[in-house]
Amino acid sequence: MNRFRSNRIKVSLSLLVLLLWLLLPAVADEGMWPYNLVPKDYLAKKYNFKVTDEWLDHLRLASVRFGGASASFVSPDGLVLTNHHVGRGAIQNLSTAERDLIKNGFYARTRDQELKCPGVELWVLEGIEDVTDKVLSAEKPGMSPQEVLAARQKIISDIQKEATEKTGLRCQVVTLYSGGKYNLYKYKTYNDVRLVFAVEEEIAFFGGDPDNFTYPRYDLDISIFRVYENGQPLKTPNYLKWATSPLKEGELVFCSGNPGSTGRLLTYDQLLFLRDVSYPFTIANLKRRQALLHEYANRGPEQERISLNTIFGIENSLKATIGYQSGLLDKELMAKKLAEEQKIRQEIASRPELSKEYGQAWEEIAQAQKEYASFFKEYQFIERGNAFNTVYFNLARALVRMATERDRQNPEMVAARRMFGSTGPIYDDFEIYKLADSLKQLKEELPDLQETKWLLGCKSPEEVAKELVTGTKLKDPEFRKKLMEGGSEAIYQCQDPMIKLALMVEPLARGLRERYEKRVQAVEVKNGTLIAKALFQLKGTSIPPDATGTLRLSFGVVKGYMENGKKIPFETTFAGLYEKAKKHNYQPPYSLPKIWLEKKSALNLNTPLNFVATIDSIGGNSGSPVVNRKGEFVGALFDGNIQSLPTRFVYEEKLSRSVMVDGQALIEALIKIYDAKPLADELLGKK
Amino acid sequence: MNRFRSNRIKVSLSLLVLLLWLLLPAVADEGMWPYNLVPKDYLAKKYNFKVTDEWLDHLRLASVRFGGASASFVSPDGLVLTNHHVGRGAIQNLSTAERDLIKNGFYARTRDQELKCPGVELWVLEGIEDVTDKVLSAEKPGMSPQEVLAARQKIISDIQKEATEKTGLRCQVVTLYSGGKYNLYKYKTYNDVRLVFAVEEEIAFFGGDPDNFTYPRYDLDISIFRVYENGQPLKTPNYLKWATSPLKEGELVFCSGNPGSTGRLLTYDQLLFLRDVSYPFTIANLKRRQALLHEYANRGPEQERISLNTIFGIENSLKATIGYQSGLLDKELMAKKLAEEQKIRQEIASRPELSKEYGQAWEEIAQAQKEYASFFKEYQFIERGNAFNTVYFNLARALVRMATERDRQNPEMVAARRMFGSTGPIYDDFEIYKLADSLKQLKEELPDLQETKWLLGCKSPEEVAKELVTGTKLKDPEFRKKLMEGGSEAIYQCQDPMIKLALMVEPLARGLRERYEKRVQAVEVKNGTLIAKALFQLKGTSIPPDATGTLRLSFGVVKGYMENGKKIPFETTFAGLYEKAKKHNYQPPYSLPKIWLEKKSALNLNTPLNFVATIDSIGGNSGSPVVNRKGEFVGALFDGNIQSLPTRFVYEEKLSRSVMVDGQALIEALIKIYDAKPLADELLGKK
Repeated sequence: MNRFRSNRIKVSLSLLVLLLWLLLPAVADEGMWPYNLVPKDYLAKKYNFKVTDEWLDHLRLASVRFGGASASFVSPDGLVLTNHHVGRGAIQNLSTAERDLIKNGFYARTRDQELKCPGVELWVLEGIEDVTDKVLSAEKPGMSPQEVLAARQKIISDIQKEATEKTGLRCQVVTLYSGGKYNLYKYKTYNDVRLVFAVEEEIAFFGGDPDNFTYPRYDLDISIFRVYENGQPLKTPNYLKWATSPLKEGELVFCSGNPGSTGRLLTYDQLLFLRDVSYPFTIANLKRRQALLHEYANRGPEQERISLNTIFGIENSLKATIGYQSGLLDKELMAKKLAEEQKIRQEIASRPELSKEYGQAWEEIAQAQKEYASFFKEYQFIERGNAFNTVYFNLARALVRMATERDRQNPEMVAARRMFGSTGPIYDDFEIYKLADSLKQLKEELPDLQETKWLLGCKSPEEVAKELVTGTKLKDPEFRKKLMEGGSEAIYQCQDPMIKLALMVEPLARGLRERYEKRVQAVEVKNGTLIAKALFQLKGTSIPPDATGTLRLSFGVVKGYMENGKKIPFETTFAGLYEKAKKHNYQPPYSLPKIWLEKKSALNLNTPLNFVATIDSIGGNSGSPVVNRKGEFVGALFDGNIQSLPTRFVYEEKLSRSVMVDGQALIEALIKIYDAKPLADELLGKK
Repeated sequence: MNRFRSNRIKVSLSLLVLLLWLLLPAVADEGMWPYNLVPKDYLAKKYNFKVTDEWLDHLRLASVRFGGASASFVSPDGLVLTNHHVGRGAIQNLSTAERDLIKNGFYARTRDQELKCPGVELWVLEGIEDVTDKVLSAEKPGMSPQEVLAARQKIISDIQKEATEKTGLRCQVVTLYSGGKYNLYKYKTYNDVRLVFAVEEEIAFFGGDPDNFTYPRYDLDISIFRVYENGQPLKTPNYLKWATSPLKEGELVFCSGNPGSTGRLLTYDQLLFLRDVSYPFTIANLKRRQALLHEYANRGPEQERISLNTIFGIENSLKATIGYQSGLLDKELMAKKLAEEQKIRQEIASRPELSKEYGQAWEEIAQAQKEYASFFKEYQFIERGNAFNTVYFNLARALVRMATERDRQNPEMVAARRMFGSTGPIYDDFEIYKLADSLKQLKEELPDLQETKWLLGCKSPEEVAKELVTGTKLKDPEFRKKLMEGGSEAIYQCQDPMIKLALMVEPLARGLRERYEKRVQAVEVKNGTLIAKALFQLKGTSIPPDATGTLRLSFGVVKGYMENGKKIPFETTFAGLYEKAKKHNYQPPYSLPKIWLEKKSALNLNTPLNFVATIDSIGGNSGSPVVNRKGEFVGALFDGNIQSLPTRFVYEEKLSRSVMVDGQALIEALIKIYDAKPLADELLGKK
């Protein structure tokens, strides 16, 4: 791997141009906005839309966090709608070789047929509190960056603990603007989640990997669950009503979900690190795993069934990462990023009082990138677990850390602890297969590590993987529970081979983590905070913060676009779906479920299936409800087009689009294809 | 190894006898008394000797802790006298193949010839404070034994830290009566310690291992150091004047030193544990090492020189442990211990208010012994380091623990940290030899441990030992210093093979330690405290606490004894030394240094060489000054006779004796043999 190199392009701009730019107001629909920072003035001015607190509160409380992605309440009886690919893991966990819900879909005709999903927990954001002053007050003069970070983490942990105890909600402090702001998010959580409806994989993911991140699209990427409380369906006023009128091009729409992460406020050197170190590693690694798992899936239908969810995840990540990287490899985009940064830095350099405070921030971050590059590989393999690609190792490491880390009360730990009672099925053959290859990779990439020698010094990766997987008892929830309750004494004395492995690599993993925290993260947070402060001084808080996997509101207009001189219309229809299937001779990934062929004639083929809008979104937004001005459900975001991927780093609205399933398509399919009028009626409020 | 079995002998005593016994005052010279618990009334009554505070303070401040043993100031210019075998490690560290100070002895004729001893630190007890109430107040209702122990340890750590900060002294809380009392000991420490005088090994350890723990004896077991402060000899009023009149049989003498540990207040089940589990393991282990090291020493004179100090330590421990075990194997002694315990337990059982509070204590301790027996072997091999018999592992583990343990401020850690700058010479060949055998033992005894497999799965113990020792850089003080300063990040990422080993076994070691602390130690402390409270209620505080390696005062009379119908006189002379040497044809271990043969005629052969007294002592008392009523130095304790060893568990004064070097012998030898009149004059105060 090439070490990170900084190739600065010298850009010089006149002060006039600079000041002009600095004084410009936001002119684009950019931004995945925290609910407490929504740009109401902008919306009023540009769209003549008055955002009221009631409107915002209702949409927020109807928005649901589903795993790392998004969903929404769509009925007063606790129905939760999300993408099929968001619910996929839960659906797969309910499947067996005999009952393949992924392939065949599912519909619970009665409530007692709804299937409880082990390990699924949904979060609803009950409130946001600004705790910036409290967190920043942790910093005392003379502290090193690491001490500042530790002090902030300590106070954050205290704030979370106190708030959790006080409210009974799950409380997390969210870091915005690299530490420029800290907000406390309070979540109500739901653990009894049952599967109500899932389409067949073929219609959810029509076009498969080739069509993923493209448009036009024809996917009914929908699954529906129901939240129960005390054994009864949740009664809630906070649900989205179904839109009654069809969408029009140019219409303003809103999207409420949990975008995972963006890097628009990253410095130029951080982008170079991603381009030259991080993404090349990730892409090569995902490609290796993609090839490996396809080989596994080809062994037989059962292997295919078992591995398909993982393959889907890998291919999705791979395509996304390649898309992000395409932005960083785009010279124009990078020149634009550099120019923007240079503008800010020149403005700061020209004002001594700012220069003294903020002048060094970019250079210090650049140094941290070099440091990170120097141990990136070890960090990925050991601390990020790349060398131990099995769910058993994840369980083992989580148990080890729960038992041995000082702060066992942080929300991740609490969540992990709860999960240990229930995981989906684990297939040992598959686990051995994955682990063996990652161990092989370890041996290839880091042969001189003592850990590698102990583990693989006299046995092949295959032998070791087999011994570890067949030897561990971690599949047994009772065993996990006992270990968890036994604390460090039990963990430290445990003879389970996977626990032993996790313990053996833990010191090195912790060393790498400490190095990362001290020499990279702490430097980035310290200087990121400074840069954010500088930006606030120069531009106010009109800059949207980067995504952080937390609830955000974004908006845009329903709108087609031009691609290679061709007009791409804003929406597709069922008719287009059948045409595309036919064009590909109904061969995978363009095959259709049998029932869709049989019942085609019943469908209104003009029903809109997917549509696009200029909504600013990114991975994590999957499943997000999209609503109209009235706050009515018009569709569920499930993808972005390929042009949207570089918006991870720079917002763009000419070509970049979010892709949604149109709510009308779901209703039409429920009634005409799935014989599920009761469910359609519940969604339409006709019960 | 046999699991611990409790074989109770039923003893029944009438309540009358019991009460009689309980009301009896102390009638023997038993006790190694903390300086704040000295039985002044007893001494006044039995010996008509009034112990004044001045007398006690002077003796205390002249007493010195030297490593794990004892010494005393014997001149106003900082001379410190101890045994040769106590100073042996320091003397050996100053030796090389070319300059063998162990074999040839040493005398610094001028101050600038005095040799600085790396790593030697002497402690003087400046004060004692009772903190029992403070420590016991840590216990809150409803706490488990482990929580009580942890709470006490926390408060102890706080007390120590606070006292250290306040006084600048090294402060340690000492647990007396298994937790019945807690005293804070405050030490002044001296780090600049230089070798002034050492006799030759042959005269220090005349009779060698065969004569060790026997009497009559003929050893001039003496070495003399000088404490410096700010580069100048320490000026101190707190030194012992040399006695001017010779000792008489029947004379009362006192001994001030640091007895290591006794087990007189152990319950009967704790004694059974020692007898059936702990001692058999220790004895077998020491024997294995004894044989191993003799084989090494036989390889050549340099190997002999290198290994002799270790051999001495092993043989000394072996003989002592066998002696202790002989007491436990003595049915009469054990029956006496059981009878005493039954008396107390019956008395408590007969009084409901006591029974409720204390009745369960013995049984809970018995259960803890069973638990301990179940993991004793793993505990010894892994946590006590038996499997890794090399100084490098000790260094590595200490570095690992310093970097990773929460409470890095405890005095042991502070001391360890200081030591890391300077250790004596390390001989890799010797380290490989020892380590290889202990790894072999690990493989024999615990082959199924994952740690054993990783370490020894595909290599022989010899190969692994060689790789570890030749691969480690821990010999280099700079390397150690850098690691120490680098904290956990440096340790966790360190690739040194010995550090890696220490890290790899650390989780298991900590698990075993937690198990020990929770299931054995905490139970023993909880119930030991209860038993102590019960004893205080029944007998007051006239019971001496067990030895704890801290400064104690004991006393007795100079007195011979009968052995196999033969009278053993209280003292020996130089004449006896020469006779015994001749009788053994001057063959080792009865050979004499050449100069002792050459200068024999110059000596007054009637000078007393060694003497015995009924002083209560145990290992750790080596080097203790013995003084007369006037507080004058009359000799230095260096041994006990073989009959004294079982007094670890039951005091006895008919046959048990402490063995001393007579101060007169040293003066005579200094002047007549060593041409060291200036040193003799300094001791005699004739400067």
